[in-house]
Amino acid sequence: MGLGMDYQTPLRDMRFLINDVLDFDGHYQAIESDASRDLVDTVLEQCARFAENELFPLRASGDKTGCSWNDGAVMTPAGFAEAYAMYVQGGWPSIAGNPAFGGQGLPRSISLWVEEIMASANMAWTMYGSLSRAAINAIDSHGSDDLKATFLPNLISGEWTGTMCLTEPHCGSDVGLLNTRAEPHADGSYRISGTKIFISSGDHDLADNIVHLVLARLPDSPAGTKGISLFVVPKLLDGESNSVVCGAIEDKMGIHGNATCMLHFEDSSGYLVGDANDGMRCMFTMMNEARILVGTQGVCLMELGYQASLQYATERLQMRAASGPKSPDQPADPIIVHPDVRRMLLTQKAFLEGGRVMTYFAAQLSDTAHRGSGDDRASAERLLDLMTPIVKGFVTETAFEAVNHALQIHGGHGFIRETGVEQLVRDARITLIYEGTTQIQALDLLGRKVVMNQGKALMSFIEMIRAEADLQSGGPFASTLRELADQWGELGLGLGGKAMGDVDEIGAASVDFLMYSGYATMAYFWARIARVASAHEDDAFMRGKVKTAQFFFDRILPRANAHRQAALSGADSLMDVSANEFGHH
Amino acid sequence: MGLGMDYQTPLRDMRFLINDVLDFDGHYQAIESDASRDLVDTVLEQCARFAENELFPLRASGDKTGCSWNDGAVMTPAGFAEAYAMYVQGGWPSIAGNPAFGGQGLPRSISLWVEEIMASANMAWTMYGSLSRAAINAIDSHGSDDLKATFLPNLISGEWTGTMCLTEPHCGSDVGLLNTRAEPHADGSYRISGTKIFISSGDHDLADNIVHLVLARLPDSPAGTKGISLFVVPKLLDGESNSVVCGAIEDKMGIHGNATCMLHFEDSSGYLVGDANDGMRCMFTMMNEARILVGTQGVCLMELGYQASLQYATERLQMRAASGPKSPDQPADPIIVHPDVRRMLLTQKAFLEGGRVMTYFAAQLSDTAHRGSGDDRASAERLLDLMTPIVKGFVTETAFEAVNHALQIHGGHGFIRETGVEQLVRDARITLIYEGTTQIQALDLLGRKVVMNQGKALMSFIEMIRAEADLQSGGPFASTLRELADQWGELGLGLGGKAMGDVDEIGAASVDFLMYSGYATMAYFWARIARVASAHEDDAFMRGKVKTAQFFFDRILPRANAHRQAALSGADSLMDVSANEFGHH
Repeated sequence: MGLGMDYQTPLRDMRFLINDVLDFDGHYQAIESDASRDLVDTVLEQCARFAENELFPLRASGDKTGCSWNDGAVMTPAGFAEAYAMYVQGGWPSIAGNPAFGGQGLPRSISLWVEEIMASANMAWTMYGSLSRAAINAIDSHGSDDLKATFLPNLISGEWTGTMCLTEPHCGSDVGLLNTRAEPHADGSYRISGTKIFISSGDHDLADNIVHLVLARLPDSPAGTKGISLFVVPKLLDGESNSVVCGAIEDKMGIHGNATCMLHFEDSSGYLVGDANDGMRCMFTMMNEARILVGTQGVCLMELGYQASLQYATERLQMRAASGPKSPDQPADPIIVHPDVRRMLLTQKAFLEGGRVMTYFAAQLSDTAHRGSGDDRASAERLLDLMTPIVKGFVTETAFEAVNHALQIHGGHGFIRETGVEQLVRDARITLIYEGTTQIQALDLLGRKVVMNQGKALMSFIEMIRAEADLQSGGPFASTLRELADQWGELGLGLGGKAMGDVDEIGAASVDFLMYSGYATMAYFWARIARVASAHEDDAFMRGKVKTAQFFFDRILPRANAHRQAALSGADSLMDVSANEFGHH
Repeated sequence: MGLGMDYQTPLRDMRFLINDVLDFDGHYQAIESDASRDLVDTVLEQCARFAENELFPLRASGDKTGCSWNDGAVMTPAGFAEAYAMYVQGGWPSIAGNPAFGGQGLPRSISLWVEEIMASANMAWTMYGSLSRAAINAIDSHGSDDLKATFLPNLISGEWTGTMCLTEPHCGSDVGLLNTRAEPHADGSYRISGTKIFISSGDHDLADNIVHLVLARLPDSPAGTKGISLFVVPKLLDGESNSVVCGAIEDKMGIHGNATCMLHFEDSSGYLVGDANDGMRCMFTMMNEARILVGTQGVCLMELGYQASLQYATERLQMRAASGPKSPDQPADPIIVHPDVRRMLLTQKAFLEGGRVMTYFAAQLSDTAHRGSGDDRASAERLLDLMTPIVKGFVTETAFEAVNHALQIHGGHGFIRETGVEQLVRDARITLIYEGTTQIQALDLLGRKVVMNQGKALMSFIEMIRAEADLQSGGPFASTLRELADQWGELGLGLGGKAMGDVDEIGAASVDFLMYSGYATMAYFWARIARVASAHEDDAFMRGKVKTAQFFFDRILPRANAHRQAALSGADSLMDVSANEFGHH
């Protein structure tokens, strides 16, 4: 039995969701893109080959050696630079880029699938390219023509990479505290000074130049988030050093192959993106896309974990089935005969495939929000705003649970580095933190996207749930869907009402509300998947979908109610505890 | 703000549980031990000093360097051997040892607290000594007088250490598959041959000799677990090599400071412990004690995580409280003002202190099971049998959640190795696996301890819950306790009934039943703690207890119902999925 992991791109599942569940062909017509099923197929297949052959083999070795830092320069693990050169040569970075600057102009959804395939094979490596897309979007959406012409062609081609520089030693979630400064210069540029930490892909040896998108304060700017501006600060300017110094890289729990940098900006030249003091809005252009990508990372890690543990469960012989031997000619039965191993596999399958369809749905909304027109565009934007914290928060939380099931199925072997599955747990752990912790997503969801919005976006999604229940009337999921639709709306509005009396009710309920919302969203998608799949009873893949949906409703969805109860239990049991009552010494 | 962790022994909490909640003084009188409150105090304080000063400083460094293997010899991290020598010199290993062989003859409960304090400071180091106690108990309970005289004095003094050698490459949970062989030798000893893996503390440089307790098969023994015998196999025999070769140590996710060894026994001399083919029974003497110790490890890791995250939450300034600034003279408020940070702290506190009292209760039962008389002894044994899988399974599962909350409170800093908190997550992950996975505990609980037992032990614990509800009649927890008592009994018997129709119902429900049982047990103990603490309203420590109990009932206990529903949902949604329906490629 081989303990080594493997990665096989789940093309069947991807295509099923793309074509049969979410009808991307119709969607592409609606947004007037000439992307087609054939084109998507070709992209997915070529990407699968690249990821399986070039990226996956570097996953474990990249974790083992990690990055190294020497006198300000970062070296990535062996093979990373060569793979990156192939990635650029293959035209992968430019898929969704603006054609005016050399991009292929395809919808963002396609670049998300490319991202998924590559990050499944090698998450740490893929991050070097992912953050470029965030930088590209910020410059493309908010930058001057000059900035676009200067930076977009090389970023879109992948010859340069990008970063997002927000965090400082004293501020992470509270970006309003930052104190990196930007002094205006006579030529219209700025001099940027300050220290940023936790900068993913902040320095490396993969590309000629690195384009940092940096939040900083102008001299006369107001305090807090209203005084923050966004700047482009390249590592090199006309090939010369721009005094951006990588002071150290972090020794961390996971994603060892990606350099997490401390960057010192020492009077570095920078260029304002968008208006002065409008940095937060520009930053969210990057951030929202990055949050969906982090949800996708959760899907990627689950995919590897599911593949590894399904194979292990099929091959590892241990004890007999309770109902009598299933492999009487072997010394024991494969552990997939045991009910709880199946529970752990099906939990992974439910979270993985359910999380995948949630990220694809968000990508569809993102396409429409960027290319659709009129009402379609506005309603897609609103729904994407609602879905973003759910995809980021819920998919990563459930991904962490899922990869732990994958490890657990391996027993003691799962704890050994060579098996490769414990790396999934270590890598997954950061997805609950970066680009806004689960807590930040939860506040965004309940406070901003539901309560401040009077529940408008939530109600439009709830209408989709009701419509699905009507389509399935009399089926096994319809009444539960209707109940969820009623309950979710009541919960959101109820919490909004409570918050009028006590502002702490939002924070007290937020994470449980996020988790409730995630289970409800996933229930909707599993019901929808089951409806589509139930038309193909002769196909094992489709039967598996229907059965996983049933499993989700029977065994996973009851958790939603525990979260609802906790969310409704009020702020008092949290807020009434004084500092000295926490202690026990 | 110092990011470095610290460890302060929670003597107040330990004493509160020992004296006020569980009345160990009365218990010691009942089992006719001359242990007293004063003696316990002295032991705890001295142990705290040793652990804080000598063991904790080696925790992070031991993780960083790990053990090394060179040509069959294992070197432990710097400082480990010196600390171990102090431990032996201080008389710590012999606390609960048999006085006939140099032990101090104190109740096992005291040695559990010593274990807790030391493992909180340094889990990987402490494991070198923990496994000796398991070996000592096996030899003391089942060994011949000769074996006792030969091995106990040096094991009890700590000059030698012990191991448990069960797992082989092809068998972990299913120990019945093992094929290490024991050939009888003319002098009454045996020649042991085979390979064992995942042997914690299997080789090291701390002690003069290592005494392996090895499961093996005699030549004419029946297949499966009925043909397994237990042998003592020392590394050195009269100072000479006994051909026990450490072939490798594992590179693993956590507990780097403890050597996890592959051991080759090459015609090594061994001595039968107990009767031929009675190895499983003897092994369980070790295993049951080891399982409580693993539950304790969960408590230890939670303690460190709680201390670190409570301190961080008090010092880290980030955003303002929703209800207005709490530290207006600072740039932001400490994050402990935010409701969800409090939720994560209180969840840790609830699982930590609730898990601690569960391990102490088990220790009390263990004392009585070993030293009590008549009915007391029999009922303690039965209750301990029930509690062991709950303590092992539930406390470690909730500990893994708790240390992840500790990490999450640290945000990005939690992912950095230097902060020390991610080590807790890596170390905690093994506690869900070794000495029987959560799945094995769950099958033991539901299949053996509840169903095969016709619910006798469960009913006696449920009576304790009812009695507590009566004591608290009219209080905030009484009706919930009564509901739990009814529901838990019904659930256990209901699942037993279903299993008569379908044997897979046990496995299908087992882990959810284990988790339900854990929440119910913990609810009982939190109610009991609140009753004791509510008499001292002027004391912040006591008020914290009452409020944590309320928090547990409001926000954590609703999960029990989700587990109950999942457990009752039946085996079909798990068992009806065929092998090819799991796939999605």
